[in-house]
Amino acid sequence: MAVAGSPVTDFDLDLAAAGDEIRSFLASYLDAAPADGYVVGVSGGLDSVLAAHLLADAVGPERVTGLLLPADPSDPENVEDARAVCERLGVAYREHDIQPVVDDVTAARDDLSKTAVGNVQARVRMVLLYQAANDANALVVGPNNRSELLLGYFTKYGDGAADVAPLADVYKTEAYDLAREVGVSDDVVAKTPTAELWEGQTDPDELGAPYEVIDPILHAYVDEDRTIEETVEATGADRETVTEFVERYEASTHKRERPPSPGVR
Amino acid sequence: MAVAGSPVTDFDLDLAAAGDEIRSFLASYLDAAPADGYVVGVSGGLDSVLAAHLLADAVGPERVTGLLLPADPSDPENVEDARAVCERLGVAYREHDIQPVVDDVTAARDDLSKTAVGNVQARVRMVLLYQAANDANALVVGPNNRSELLLGYFTKYGDGAADVAPLADVYKTEAYDLAREVGVSDDVVAKTPTAELWEGQTDPDELGAPYEVIDPILHAYVDEDRTIEETVEATGADRETVTEFVERYEASTHKRERPPSPGVR
Repeated sequence: MAVAGSPVTDFDLDLAAAGDEIRSFLASYLDAAPADGYVVGVSGGLDSVLAAHLLADAVGPERVTGLLLPADPSDPENVEDARAVCERLGVAYREHDIQPVVDDVTAARDDLSKTAVGNVQARVRMVLLYQAANDANALVVGPNNRSELLLGYFTKYGDGAADVAPLADVYKTEAYDLAREVGVSDDVVAKTPTAELWEGQTDPDELGAPYEVIDPILHAYVDEDRTIEETVEATGADRETVTEFVERYEASTHKRERPPSPGVR
Repeated sequence: MAVAGSPVTDFDLDLAAAGDEIRSFLASYLDAAPADGYVVGVSGGLDSVLAAHLLADAVGPERVTGLLLPADPSDPENVEDARAVCERLGVAYREHDIQPVVDDVTAARDDLSKTAVGNVQARVRMVLLYQAANDANALVVGPNNRSELLLGYFTKYGDGAADVAPLADVYKTEAYDLAREVGVSDDVVAKTPTAELWEGQTDPDELGAPYEVIDPILHAYVDEDRTIEETVEATGADRETVTEFVERYEASTHKRERPPSPGVR
């Protein structure tokens, strides 16, 4: 816990050490399960590519399967990047256009918001990842980073649904540096973050701030257990911004916990 | 915690009180969310019908939507029962045959086990329940009882995926009595439990023992924190049976927790 008023000091992970710990976790978790390999959805975005790199390094590319699950409006360039990454790593991959399934699910509803359709896409991807994992005795890897998890910026039971979450401790701003550290190509690192929920969607636009502003707020409030006032002071962000992201964190608790029960026993 | 060697004493909930607590939880959770109503999948089996009764009583039938989501091989009689229950309770319901979506998802795979196909069905139901809930500002109700949850006898991110779990504290053997208590019709209470994962599937066959044997074992080992030896003594079940269900409980921990992370911070 931080001393009130002190600056955010330990925000930067030792990324070389973190990379080692993540690889070691992925190797030992697979052995302990025990399971034969990992299945990971590769969108071509930073997090999934970073996860693919860490997985291939941790357990060998022959025990990793990549699934490329594009939907409208997945950027063809991202799909091309995803293929190139799998090939470079020596990871076997399969492609499955999920749009027909998404269309089937949404067919009876012409009034869905774009968020609702994006949620269907994320959940359909989960169904396909688990189908691939099921009979192969493999584990599904969730690519969510710590920023997304703490903000609830993911689809409940969609991209948030997995057997292991190797990037769950790593903020998005740290994921860039970790990606460089493990050899992710510069063009992937340079991409603007997007959940590809709809055409032109970007994380900073939708969240209302860049991760460079958000991450220190989350770190100060969640990891260092500071109050809102102390978080304002430690990060230099304005009170309104801090309050907004703290509220997002608090309001998304239900996405990080198992469904509550009445507690009758 | 129980004294070693003492019999399992407090297995029986006070069901009238438990019913009140569950209804009160459902009402206050909806207000606190805040959300406009509940969406529940109604298969026609005991648990989903019991959940529908409790929901209608707790928040009024006008704030409950039933989804009937049959697939091959859903028993037409169950679907008919589900309709009758919704009509009797005054709960609006919609029907959606999920088999076309399931066929789409599984089309590329002709080597799937029947369990894998059953898992796809359960997950597709979840996608549709959340789609119904999403734009209606409603919460999804999970019908899993405590026996299923502790055994991991549910599909991860399928029927286990919900916003609230009103029956999570109630063992299957207790669910029968609670169902009678809240006015579920005798023919629904009399059904043999089945997840309808495949034709003729029943829970006792698949689990290898009836819930009357399983529930006291789980209660002694989990709720009363007894050892295996003490559980054998307290329940009168044989050691092999106790060990088997304790192992199922331990091995399914991952289905009840959020995906593990490396813990680098």
